[in-house]
Amino acid sequence: MSSASGKQPQVITCKAAVAWGAAQPLVIEEVEVGPPQPFEIRVKVVSTSLCRSDISAWESQAIFPRIFGHEASGIVESVGEGVTEFSEGDHVLTVFTGECKTCKQCTSGKSNICQVLGLERRGLMHSDQKTRFFIKGKPVYHYCAVSSFSEYIVVHSGCAVKVNSDVPLEKICLLSCGVAAGLGGAWNVADVSKGSTVVIFGLGTVGLSVAQGAKLRGASRIIGVDTNPEKGDKAKAFGITEFINPNDCNEPIQQVIKRVTDGGADYSFECIGDTGMITTALQSCCDGWGLTVTLGVPKVKPEVAAHYGIFLTGRTLKGSLFGGWRPKSDLPSLVDMYMKKEIQIDEYITHNLRFEDINEAFNLMREGKCLRCVIHMPV
Amino acid sequence: MSSASGKQPQVITCKAAVAWGAAQPLVIEEVEVGPPQPFEIRVKVVSTSLCRSDISAWESQAIFPRIFGHEASGIVESVGEGVTEFSEGDHVLTVFTGECKTCKQCTSGKSNICQVLGLERRGLMHSDQKTRFFIKGKPVYHYCAVSSFSEYIVVHSGCAVKVNSDVPLEKICLLSCGVAAGLGGAWNVADVSKGSTVVIFGLGTVGLSVAQGAKLRGASRIIGVDTNPEKGDKAKAFGITEFINPNDCNEPIQQVIKRVTDGGADYSFECIGDTGMITTALQSCCDGWGLTVTLGVPKVKPEVAAHYGIFLTGRTLKGSLFGGWRPKSDLPSLVDMYMKKEIQIDEYITHNLRFEDINEAFNLMREGKCLRCVIHMPV
Ligand SMILES: [Zn+2]
Ligand SMILES: [Zn+2]
Ligand SMILES: [Zn+2]
Ligand SMILES: [Zn+2]
Repeated sequence: MSSASGKQPQVITCKAAVAWGAAQPLVIEEVEVGPPQPFEIRVKVVSTSLCRSDISAWESQAIFPRIFGHEASGIVESVGEGVTEFSEGDHVLTVFTGECKTCKQCTSGKSNICQVLGLERRGLMHSDQKTRFFIKGKPVYHYCAVSSFSEYIVVHSGCAVKVNSDVPLEKICLLSCGVAAGLGGAWNVADVSKGSTVVIFGLGTVGLSVAQGAKLRGASRIIGVDTNPEKGDKAKAFGITEFINPNDCNEPIQQVIKRVTDGGADYSFECIGDTGMITTALQSCCDGWGLTVTLGVPKVKPEVAAHYGIFLTGRTLKGSLFGGWRPKSDLPSLVDMYMKKEIQIDEYITHNLRFEDINEAFNLMREGKCLRCVIHMPV
Repeated sequence: MSSASGKQPQVITCKAAVAWGAAQPLVIEEVEVGPPQPFEIRVKVVSTSLCRSDISAWESQAIFPRIFGHEASGIVESVGEGVTEFSEGDHVLTVFTGECKTCKQCTSGKSNICQVLGLERRGLMHSDQKTRFFIKGKPVYHYCAVSSFSEYIVVHSGCAVKVNSDVPLEKICLLSCGVAAGLGGAWNVADVSKGSTVVIFGLGTVGLSVAQGAKLRGASRIIGVDTNPEKGDKAKAFGITEFINPNDCNEPIQQVIKRVTDGGADYSFECIGDTGMITTALQSCCDGWGLTVTLGVPKVKPEVAAHYGIFLTGRTLKGSLFGGWRPKSDLPSLVDMYMKKEIQIDEYITHNLRFEDINEAFNLMREGKCLRCVIHMPV
């Protein structure tokens, strides 16, 4: 392998926030980051933001020691053999689901579920099923083949998107997952139409990005549902026109929605990651053309269930990964929209933290006190 | 009320096949058929075909005595007050789900789930929640507000479609439900595209009509799945290109489908009425754009269940009633297509029976030995 500058990439020793066990505070450790393998790049992380999925995996999964983090931006440090798209110094956005551009799914032009670089769940790299992180020679596992809570990371070149050097890396890391997923949910998956009524369950970053997407499409009513009473006011800035806290209601939330929308919303979005709420979302959209989009990744019960009558009366349930965006093909246009101020990103950043304070970000997210915490890596 | 000819419609006494209890053989009885009420018409049934839903309801439901039957054609005998669309002597097709043309759903232009004349489940007429059938003055319940196993029936004018007098009534009764539902499933609900791969679970009339619809759209592979080995050969005539009997397979049918289609079909259709098979159908369609359409009405377990990962990877589950057709707006064009020989109907008629042999039709359907039995009413 060789870097763009002809040097042979060596192991880098740097700091990473390592999770040693489920729900145990991260420990900043010295880790060895191996050189990029063929078609991989090594990236110096500039900014990384914490997503709800990091928390869920950290709380519930069994693969440790592990480095979490999947929303990130950075600068290419070196490239592996065969990489022609990137060179040292390129600014990039990393993505948790890649695009190989050659598999059946990628070449279909209608899918982002790459068969080669899809969602990685075992903590390993796609290409050789090994890790690039080590502590004293022992493997430290990846998360979603990104693991951005480290100063340096190795990612597959199909899991990175080049951006211009004038793009603020400390903002656009949010397009790696949450904000893009929500916008894509409204645009690519639901294709929200002008004048329509939308209901969004869960007003985290994904839900509020659905709201932004629906607003930009001209939806006339965007009803936000969340059990956290503090979400209501803040949500207005993202397009929510009405806020309902199910805890304030004397009847099931789906009945409230059906009543206030005269039969149900045109579109309902599940942005919590609760399969029971997918059922509620289906019950909250209307007969005939009601569409429910599921964007959350369930933490507990993995089974989606609903009475067949829900479908018989003309409803549709549609899922997607990453809001249906093909990362390499589509993300550059989202970055452009941000640069032209056509979409909001900055507004989702409620906290800016130093890398050494990463456990504070975990606490804020767990307690529902933030939208996005951006972690600024040491320069 | 007044008929088109100015006469006052009176009670008609005629023969009807009455079900006195669940799964009990029908008894041909003398019934009194009341005059059509406002916006209703009374129809002399010419032909009626037996649909799987008649059997399911007869076997499992609790409302008796009852007159089943919902695929039918006939001639208007008299009309109720306010009816301007029909006159005595008009040829009509009856439908089990009406179109009022004024409710939110009907005026949306994108739904057939009429809020006024939707699927009737209590055995009563939509307008006054009463019956029009009596035996010695005691009510006999309707089925789907049609009840075509009677020489004369009363239906809402929104549940009937006028056809030209040259249209063969003994054939087009199949467009009242099964054949239309399948064609609509392929065209309106799935919108099957040219060159695509389709898998159909259940090769009854609905499944084979999906096959016909998919074939007419230019699907390149239409895989039919049925546990009845006799279905295979006959299915080819309707467009099935490959037949698979799950009982002949050593692995679950969804794995067989995924293997032979290299990852799953573009479209899968559940035409059995088994919620477990909806899950199987979801597992049989591909990542990214796989679409499952549920057309069957489940007889037992009403809950549809599937792992959320099925949706996360880009699948869609869509349901519909009557294949999404708006009966009054859309059925005339289907009748036209039949008259121009653009769609097949006759081929689904495997048996022609006299009214007095109606129990034989029930047996044939129960035993899976027919597609459609057309029952010819006494002239
Ligand atoms: Zn995420
Ligand atoms: Zn690919
Ligand atoms: Zn209506
Ligand atoms: Zn039917």
